[in-house]
Amino acid sequence: MRQSNILIAQGGGPTAVINQSMVGIILEAKRHSQITSIYGALHGVTGIINQNFINLTLETDSNLERVALTPCSALGSTRDKPDLSYCREILKVLKAHDIDSFFYIGGNDSSDSLRIIANEAKKSAYPLRCIHIPKTIDNDLMINDHTPGFPSAAKFVANAFSGINQDNRALPGIYVGVVMGRDAGFLTAASTFGKTFEDDGPHLIYLPERDFELNNFLQDIKITYQKFGRCVIAVSEGIRNSQGIPIVTTPGSKLEKDAHGNVQLSGTGALADLLTNYIKTNLNVNRVRGDTFGYLQRSFLGCVSEIDQREAREVGAKAVEFAMSSYSDGSVTINRVNEYNIEYRLNKLEDIAGKTKKMPDFFISRSGNNITEPFRKYLEPLLGKPLPKTSRLEAPIVKKL
Amino acid sequence: MRQSNILIAQGGGPTAVINQSMVGIILEAKRHSQITSIYGALHGVTGIINQNFINLTLETDSNLERVALTPCSALGSTRDKPDLSYCREILKVLKAHDIDSFFYIGGNDSSDSLRIIANEAKKSAYPLRCIHIPKTIDNDLMINDHTPGFPSAAKFVANAFSGINQDNRALPGIYVGVVMGRDAGFLTAASTFGKTFEDDGPHLIYLPERDFELNNFLQDIKITYQKFGRCVIAVSEGIRNSQGIPIVTTPGSKLEKDAHGNVQLSGTGALADLLTNYIKTNLNVNRVRGDTFGYLQRSFLGCVSEIDQREAREVGAKAVEFAMSSYSDGSVTINRVNEYNIEYRLNKLEDIAGKTKKMPDFFISRSGNNITEPFRKYLEPLLGKPLPKTSRLEAPIVKKL
Repeated sequence: MRQSNILIAQGGGPTAVINQSMVGIILEAKRHSQITSIYGALHGVTGIINQNFINLTLETDSNLERVALTPCSALGSTRDKPDLSYCREILKVLKAHDIDSFFYIGGNDSSDSLRIIANEAKKSAYPLRCIHIPKTIDNDLMINDHTPGFPSAAKFVANAFSGINQDNRALPGIYVGVVMGRDAGFLTAASTFGKTFEDDGPHLIYLPERDFELNNFLQDIKITYQKFGRCVIAVSEGIRNSQGIPIVTTPGSKLEKDAHGNVQLSGTGALADLLTNYIKTNLNVNRVRGDTFGYLQRSFLGCVSEIDQREAREVGAKAVEFAMSSYSDGSVTINRVNEYNIEYRLNKLEDIAGKTKKMPDFFISRSGNNITEPFRKYLEPLLGKPLPKTSRLEAPIVKKL
Repeated sequence: MRQSNILIAQGGGPTAVINQSMVGIILEAKRHSQITSIYGALHGVTGIINQNFINLTLETDSNLERVALTPCSALGSTRDKPDLSYCREILKVLKAHDIDSFFYIGGNDSSDSLRIIANEAKKSAYPLRCIHIPKTIDNDLMINDHTPGFPSAAKFVANAFSGINQDNRALPGIYVGVVMGRDAGFLTAASTFGKTFEDDGPHLIYLPERDFELNNFLQDIKITYQKFGRCVIAVSEGIRNSQGIPIVTTPGSKLEKDAHGNVQLSGTGALADLLTNYIKTNLNVNRVRGDTFGYLQRSFLGCVSEIDQREAREVGAKAVEFAMSSYSDGSVTINRVNEYNIEYRLNKLEDIAGKTKKMPDFFISRSGNNITEPFRKYLEPLLGKPLPKTSRLEAPIVKKL
């Protein structure tokens, strides 16, 4: 049997369970006798062209189990978006180290890098298997029912809004919470999962899938505020107007672009401040507050879905099984069968690479500012243990004297 | 024995355990046969002048136990700061409802309101006991070793920075996290408790207790960045310059003031954006990000210290014991005796009201941008169960070819 060296790398934004997938790959790889060495590239593709590898074959299982429980890419990540010549450099290094399977854990940008590398390998007739392992809190990968990292981030966002709703009941006013999600609103929609009572917030939800109109926004808030005397709003960082221009790109804002040409949406309070200022200017309300949840959503220690942990682990193990049982490249996807069972399948890289899944229409209410029951049913099994319920005092009112 | 009606209210910013104190009062009050009625005022002092009371005597113990686990003032809170005539209105209502004990759960502003009410009651020879129950995530009440709400918020901040540190290791750069705390840096200082390894962040901490100089800030970051290739910074929202002016009040910013004359520091990303822009402009670093933790710190569902829960409950119960065993007004304080034991004492309202405790000098490093070992020893017993540890890969480096 041909001996095999494999390489693992992690790309893009970290998640709470991305190390589960890495550990899933390593532990499964250790079971295959033909795999001689398991290398890890530090900081994704950057680590490959710089030959910054560590020898994961020598990690103990017990340390791996501890790392699996630690949030964020233990190998380090990168925002580099390799072009053709970059990918050729990568291939050179893979050849030099006699690597025949490359496992890249990442989102749609990472899978696109993998697609280019796989093409280049084929052109040069180098026997390389390129396997993409899904990962993104945005939940925006094609074919996948959902992606590892999303359920844990969703749990964080739901817990956060459940608390925020209590805070807003105690000190009523208008609250805007900005949630991650450049192109897809799944994570913002998860904000509704901490609701216990009919009038609990978030009362309004704004997603990148629907055109955002400042005037409608204001009108929605007015109606909600009149009804409940308060209003909690969940807004996706990626909301855009009917021309597709992100709301956050107002004149004068100095927003960074990354190597993929994406405007920096996170790590700045710009959108929440813009929206709260707009509300303050246009509505006569005493208390208007905004928070941008930022990096806490993808890294918070101790807020993780057990389902997410398990699936992130399994999808890594499955990637090795697929690689060892076939010579195809591909992207491992998570598919839901029946009520809640999961099947892992190997798909063509082309079907995932560089593409973005959006929330389907039937998950979004007709008003465009809320979710539907099918979305609830979709998300519920992903979150693991039910969220703690909130409770209210039930005592009767005392007669005024 | 004289029959007694008591009133409970909650004031100021909510915490994760403020309902524990309310429930502590109610359950203890139910044990005293001379207490006929337990009223709750909705939204603090505002609820008193409007006679918005509920009859807490009729709450079941099991619902109270559920409410105790729910974050944020279940009775509702207020930012109203009563003046003399407002306090006289309050007294009128208390008299009308024959209330002889008023329990107000809040911070230094709430205790100051209580002080005025107690004085007015004495002047009119109305037999009223005014008892203040401490509560604030800022941990800034005099005499108290610490205040209920702080340990749970500290746990949230420590967990958040532990995850943020992992995120920053994965995608290195400069990260600024803005933490609540107008006048005292305790909560910001708690950000260090998620550190496992020597080079874990936060690497720098800026507190309201030390003058903030933008140039020194920049210099500190430069040194850290050169050392670690990254830098995680925890900044208190209340940092100010040597003239005592909050750094966030830059020209052109439209910051609100509340009824107490305090500038709005939370619910806006202004400070983080100001600091990250300053870093971007002055240092040649690729990745500069800032988050303002905002209201999540005091309300997040499911991140609570068991010690905090227990003490918040006990301090409420003690308030009733003190009220029933003496006719004094006062503020119940939490005092540490020996290694970690707690004693509750009744202090004069004047010693707490309107005053602010700051971090003592020996909790702050000489450099002014970090904490000391005594602070670690101070905070550790408050957080309850130890934080989850983070782990790193230990695999050796592979030789470059």
